[in-house]
Amino acid sequence: MAALRVGVIGASGYSGAVATRLLAAHPFARLVGCTSDKLAGRLVGRELGCRLPSLEGLEFQPNADAHRVAAESDAVLLATSAEVSAKLAPELVGHGKVVIDLSGAFRLGDPAAYPAWYGFEHPAPSLLPAHYGLPELFGAPPAGTKLVANPGCYPTASLLPLAPLLREGLIEPAGLVIDAKSGVTGAGRQAKEEYSFGEVDEDLRAYKVLSHQHSPEITAILSRFRPSKLTFTAHLLPIRRGLLATAYARPTAQATPERLRACLADAYAGKPFVEVVTPHEVTVKSVAGTNLARVAVTANDDVVIAIGVIDNLLKGAAGQAVQNLNLAFGFPETAGLDALHRLAA
Amino acid sequence: MAALRVGVIGASGYSGAVATRLLAAHPFARLVGCTSDKLAGRLVGRELGCRLPSLEGLEFQPNADAHRVAAESDAVLLATSAEVSAKLAPELVGHGKVVIDLSGAFRLGDPAAYPAWYGFEHPAPSLLPAHYGLPELFGAPPAGTKLVANPGCYPTASLLPLAPLLREGLIEPAGLVIDAKSGVTGAGRQAKEEYSFGEVDEDLRAYKVLSHQHSPEITAILSRFRPSKLTFTAHLLPIRRGLLATAYARPTAQATPERLRACLADAYAGKPFVEVVTPHEVTVKSVAGTNLARVAVTANDDVVIAIGVIDNLLKGAAGQAVQNLNLAFGFPETAGLDALHRLAA
Amino acid sequence: MAALRVGVIGASGYSGAVATRLLAAHPFARLVGCTSDKLAGRLVGRELGCRLPSLEGLEFQPNADAHRVAAESDAVLLATSAEVSAKLAPELVGHGKVVIDLSGAFRLGDPAAYPAWYGFEHPAPSLLPAHYGLPELFGAPPAGTKLVANPGCYPTASLLPLAPLLREGLIEPAGLVIDAKSGVTGAGRQAKEEYSFGEVDEDLRAYKVLSHQHSPEITAILSRFRPSKLTFTAHLLPIRRGLLATAYARPTAQATPERLRACLADAYAGKPFVEVVTPHEVTVKSVAGTNLARVAVTANDDVVIAIGVIDNLLKGAAGQAVQNLNLAFGFPETAGLDALHRLAA
Amino acid sequence: MAALRVGVIGASGYSGAVATRLLAAHPFARLVGCTSDKLAGRLVGRELGCRLPSLEGLEFQPNADAHRVAAESDAVLLATSAEVSAKLAPELVGHGKVVIDLSGAFRLGDPAAYPAWYGFEHPAPSLLPAHYGLPELFGAPPAGTKLVANPGCYPTASLLPLAPLLREGLIEPAGLVIDAKSGVTGAGRQAKEEYSFGEVDEDLRAYKVLSHQHSPEITAILSRFRPSKLTFTAHLLPIRRGLLATAYARPTAQATPERLRACLADAYAGKPFVEVVTPHEVTVKSVAGTNLARVAVTANDDVVIAIGVIDNLLKGAAGQAVQNLNLAFGFPETAGLDALHRLAA
Repeated sequence: MAALRVGVIGASGYSGAVATRLLAAHPFARLVGCTSDKLAGRLVGRELGCRLPSLEGLEFQPNADAHRVAAESDAVLLATSAEVSAKLAPELVGHGKVVIDLSGAFRLGDPAAYPAWYGFEHPAPSLLPAHYGLPELFGAPPAGTKLVANPGCYPTASLLPLAPLLREGLIEPAGLVIDAKSGVTGAGRQAKEEYSFGEVDEDLRAYKVLSHQHSPEITAILSRFRPSKLTFTAHLLPIRRGLLATAYARPTAQATPERLRACLADAYAGKPFVEVVTPHEVTVKSVAGTNLARVAVTANDDVVIAIGVIDNLLKGAAGQAVQNLNLAFGFPETAGLDALHRLAA
Repeated sequence: MAALRVGVIGASGYSGAVATRLLAAHPFARLVGCTSDKLAGRLVGRELGCRLPSLEGLEFQPNADAHRVAAESDAVLLATSAEVSAKLAPELVGHGKVVIDLSGAFRLGDPAAYPAWYGFEHPAPSLLPAHYGLPELFGAPPAGTKLVANPGCYPTASLLPLAPLLREGLIEPAGLVIDAKSGVTGAGRQAKEEYSFGEVDEDLRAYKVLSHQHSPEITAILSRFRPSKLTFTAHLLPIRRGLLATAYARPTAQATPERLRACLADAYAGKPFVEVVTPHEVTVKSVAGTNLARVAVTANDDVVIAIGVIDNLLKGAAGQAVQNLNLAFGFPETAGLDALHRLAA
Repeated sequence: MAALRVGVIGASGYSGAVATRLLAAHPFARLVGCTSDKLAGRLVGRELGCRLPSLEGLEFQPNADAHRVAAESDAVLLATSAEVSAKLAPELVGHGKVVIDLSGAFRLGDPAAYPAWYGFEHPAPSLLPAHYGLPELFGAPPAGTKLVANPGCYPTASLLPLAPLLREGLIEPAGLVIDAKSGVTGAGRQAKEEYSFGEVDEDLRAYKVLSHQHSPEITAILSRFRPSKLTFTAHLLPIRRGLLATAYARPTAQATPERLRACLADAYAGKPFVEVVTPHEVTVKSVAGTNLARVAVTANDDVVIAIGVIDNLLKGAAGQAVQNLNLAFGFPETAGLDALHRLAA
Repeated sequence: MAALRVGVIGASGYSGAVATRLLAAHPFARLVGCTSDKLAGRLVGRELGCRLPSLEGLEFQPNADAHRVAAESDAVLLATSAEVSAKLAPELVGHGKVVIDLSGAFRLGDPAAYPAWYGFEHPAPSLLPAHYGLPELFGAPPAGTKLVANPGCYPTASLLPLAPLLREGLIEPAGLVIDAKSGVTGAGRQAKEEYSFGEVDEDLRAYKVLSHQHSPEITAILSRFRPSKLTFTAHLLPIRRGLLATAYARPTAQATPERLRACLADAYAGKPFVEVVTPHEVTVKSVAGTNLARVAVTANDDVVIAIGVIDNLLKGAAGQAVQNLNLAFGFPETAGLDALHRLAA
C-alpha cells in the first residue's frame, strides 16, 4: 500500500513543529512538505533535532508554497491562525484534499459567532461546523469527510471528563464551571514582554475572563448531549507544556461516586488515549509528551468534580490531529502515536 | 514608649523565617528571641541574609526554649504545626501572653472537627474559635484578646473577594466554587520525592480534593455572613511563592457588574492591604513579596467570578500575623509592612 | 532475524526509565524484562505513558529478579548505582551476557581509585577499565566485548568538544578548565530537602568542588590522547534535563579559529549524533529530548573555548547506552534513536 | 539634617524600579522624582506594590522631564542605557549634581573602546574613567567626586572573589578564566522571542562568547592590581534574579588553601556586604533579595577556584548604587540596605 501523502502548513509554530515530527515518524504516512516563512530553506530534521530517514534532505518551504505542497498531498494539516485557515481550508477542500485544521476556524456552528470570538467575518459559512474531531466522543470522521475541525486544547481537556457524565444524566447541564490552567506554548511563539521569562516565571494569572473563544466551543459541543450553560476560565501557567481543567457540576439524583466513576470507565473502555484515574493521578507530568488524556471524577452530595489533563501540543493539538488523520484514512488509531511517552520518565 | 517584646516559635520554616525578618525590622517591636531546632545556635541575621542592627548577635534557640523565649515576650508568634500550637498556645495564654498562631489549631469553632481535618483531638476546646485575624473583614482583635487565629493562606485569598459580595447579598450562598492554586512554600519545607524539583517543575496537580482542611475554615467564616455551602479545590503550582483563588458564584437578582465592583471597592476603601483591580491585574507577580491582596470581580447573567491573589507567606501567613499584632497593640496597621514590595520589581 | 533480547535492571530511576522506553521502541531489540523495587508489579507501559505494543502486559519485576531477567536476555543494561553494578556486572558477564553499565563502576582504570571517588572497594578489579563506550571517540566495542562502561554525563559533554582538539595538538594538555552545568535529573530521583522545588527553583550552585567523581574519568580518557591535567567543576541548574560544559584551554602554536573548527568538523563528519555548530547554537533546548550532542569551538590568541551540550538522560546516559548496544551487536548506530526529537519543538 | 534629595532616571526597568524602591525607604534620602516613559503618570507606590509613606502621591514622570527631576535633586541615579547615560551624565554633572550611573558608559578608561564594545562614539571622553564604585575594593568616592560608574553585574561577582587574591600575589595574573551565569533580569525587560518563557525555561546557553562588554571592564579593573589577562564567558540562566561567577586561576608559589581563604577573610573583614564562605555555600538563593555578595576560594596544586555570587539587581546594580550614594554623602554604608533579606526565607 502506498503511503498517504501529507503536508503541514505553518510548521514552525509549536503545534506545527510537533505535527511535522509526528508525521515524519508515521508508519503509513509520508511527509511530502511543510511550510514556514521563518524557517524556509532550512532542513526540517535539523530544526527538529530528529534523525529520521524520512526527513533527510527535506527543507521548509515558504508559506506561499502552501498550494504546491497541498497539490502533492492527499491530506493537509493546517497549523495556521484561524483567519488563515478560514481562507485556505475551503480552497484545499475544493481541490479534493482532506484537511485537518488545528485552528478554531471551523469549530463553531454559527458563522455569526466569528466576528465576536475570532475577530473576522467567516468566509466559508457553508462549511460550518466541520466534523469535530474529538474521536473518543464522536468517533471517526464519517466516510467522505473532507474537513476536520481539530478541537481546541481547553475544550479537549474539559470535554473528555464532562461529556460522558452529561450524556448519562449524572450532572446538571446548567451552572457548569470549568477552571482551566495551561502552559505557555498554548499561546504559540510570542515576542511580547508579557510572555517574557521575566514576567511569566513564578507568576500565574487568569486571562480573557468571560471572553475566551474556547468558551462557546465547549458549550456548543456539550450541548450536543444536553443543552448546557457553563462558565469557562483560562489561566496562564509558568510551564511549557500541559493543560489541566478542573470542572464543577451539580450532581443529579442518580449520581453517586461509584456511578460517576463507572460512567467514565465505561465511556473510555478500550480507548487507547484516555486513562480514567483518581484525582491525584491527574497530573501534567503524567501526560506531558504523550497523546494521552487523564480524567478523574469524584463527588459529594453537592458537587461533582471532574478533572482532565492533556499535553496541549499533543492531545490538545498535533497529536489529536494525527489521531484524526488515522481515523479518517482507516489506519490504526494509535499509528504514529504509540511511541510517545512521558517527558518526565 | 518601650518597644513591644516579641518572640517567634518555629522560625526556620518558610513562614517562621519571614515572620522573624518582619519583626526584626518592625518600628515598634523588638525581637527578643526565636526558636528552631534545625538552626539552633546559628546567627539569625546570617541565616536571613539580613543586616538589620536588631539582629546583631541574635541566635536561634532550640524549640525546647520556647517557654523561656515567651517569658521575655509580651507577644508570641507561633509558626508551628497545628498539633504543637494546640498544646503550646493555651500554656502561653495562661501566662498572660498575646499569642498569634499561624497554624489551623484555633481557626475552627467545633472541636469535633479536629480529628477529621487535622488528625488530633483538640486539647483546648474552650479556646475555640479564637479571634479570626482577617482584619479587612473582622477588624482589630477586641480589647483583651489573648489568642488570634491567623487565617490560612487559601482562606485569605478566597474570603477577601467573596465575603463582601456575600454580605451584601450579591451572590447566592450555596453552590460556591473556589478553585485555588498555590506555590510550593505553602506546603512548608519538604524532604519528599513528590516535592522534589524533578517532580514539581513543569507540573500541575490538584491535591486533597474534597478533603482539604481549609475547606471547613472557609465555609465557617463565610457562614458568619450567610450560611454558605461551597466546594474548594487546591492545586500545586510550580512556583515558590504566591496563591491565586478563582471563585464562582451565582448572582442574586440585584447583582450587576457595576454593583459587584462597587461592593468590593466600598468594602476595601481605605484598607491599605487590599487593592481592587480588574481580573487581568490579579497576578501573582503583582503581590509576591508584599502583604497585599488583589481582588477583582466580573460577572454575566449566570455567574459571578471573583478572584483573589496573595503572597502565601505574607498576607497568607507572616505578614498578616504582623498586621494582627499591629492591630492588637494599637500600632498603625502597616507598621513593619510598608517597605515590602513586589519581588518582580 | 530474531530480535535481540534485552533486560534493564533498575528501571524506575530517570535513566532506567528512559532506557526502558527506548528499548521498547527499538526495531531490532525485544525488551524481555525490567526491574524496579519501587514499581514492581505495575505495568511498564502505564508508568511510561507509552502505548507501544511491545509493552503490552509487561510488568516491572523486583530487583531480586535481576538474574532471572538476565537469564532470558542476550544483553543487559544496568541502570543501578556504581556499588550495585560493580557486583552484578561480573556475575552477568560470567553468564555470558553482554552488559552495558550506566554507572561509574567500570569507567576508571585503577581499582585503587574507587574507595576515594566512589566510596567502595572494587570487587572486580580485573575488569577495569571496561571498554569506554563513547562511540564518536572510540568506535564500536571490539568483537567479543562483554562489558561496556557507558560514559558519565559530564564526561560525554566535556570529551566530545575537547578530545579531537587535544588529539590534533591544537590545545595544550595542561591547565584545562571544564565548567559544567547540569539539570537535576543528573542526580537521580531524590527525597532530600536540598533537592526540593523550594530550594532548587531560582537557584544555582557549584557542588563537589574539586571532588567530583567525573573528574578522574575525564582526565583518564583525555590522557589516552595526551597526558592531561584539568580542573572540572559541576553546577546544579534549575532545569530538569540538559547539561552544558564550557571548556577552556590554551591554544598551541598551530591553533587558529579555522583549524579548530575544521578539527571538530572533521572529527564528527558522518557521525549521526554530533552536530558541530557555532557557540550561540550550543543550547540545552537544541538537544533536550534527543541523543544529540552539539559542540562548538572558538578562540583568540590566548584561549580556546570549546562547548558541548547534551541531554543528560539520553546522550549522557540511556541514549548512549542504546547507541553502544547497537554498535556491539552490529545494528545501525541510530536504531531506536532516530525518532527522538527536541522536546522544545 | 535635611534629607538628601535624589532622583531616578529610567525607573521602569528592572534595576531602575529596584533603585526607586530602595530610595523610597532610605532613612537619609528623599526620592524627589523618577522618570519612565512607559509608566508616566502612574503612581510609583502602586507599581512597586509598596505602601511607604514617602511614595504617597508620587507619579512617574516622562523621561523628557529628566532635567526637571535632576534640578530638584542633589544626586541622580541613571538607570538608562549606556548611550543615554553617556549624553545625560555630563549635563547633570555640569549642573553640579552627583551622578551615579548604572550603565557601562563611564566604566572603561579608554574612549576608543566604546565603539567596539558599546556601539557608539563616546561623547565625553574627558570624564573617563569615572570613579569605579566597587566600595569593597576602592572605598568611598574621593571627596568632590561628581560621577560614579556603578560596576557591571558580572564584574562585581567576578572581581570580589578574584581581586584580593591577585593583589596579594596568590594567583597568576595571566590565564584567568571566569565562567559566569546570570538570571534573565540582567538583560532588562525584553519583548523578544528569544527571551520568551517558552524559549528560556529549561534552557541554558552561553552568549556573546569572547565579545561581552563586561570582559574589558573586568580586565581593566583587575589590572589596577596587576596587569591581567583573562577569558570571560556569560551564560543565560532560567532564573529571574541572581548571578554566579566561577573563576579559575593558577596559584603562585605562596598560595595555599589556608592563605587563600585568609586573604579573602582579611580583605572583607568588617565589610558589611561580603560574606566569605565555603564553596558549597555560594548559592544564588543565599543572596537573592539582598545587597550581599558571597565569595569562596579553594585550591589544589594546579588551580585556584574562586566563586562569587550576587543578586544582579542589587549588589550588581541598584543596591550597589545606593551603597555608593551612602559613601559619597557620608551616610552609613548600609543605610537603606540593611532590611534587605533573602527572598528564599
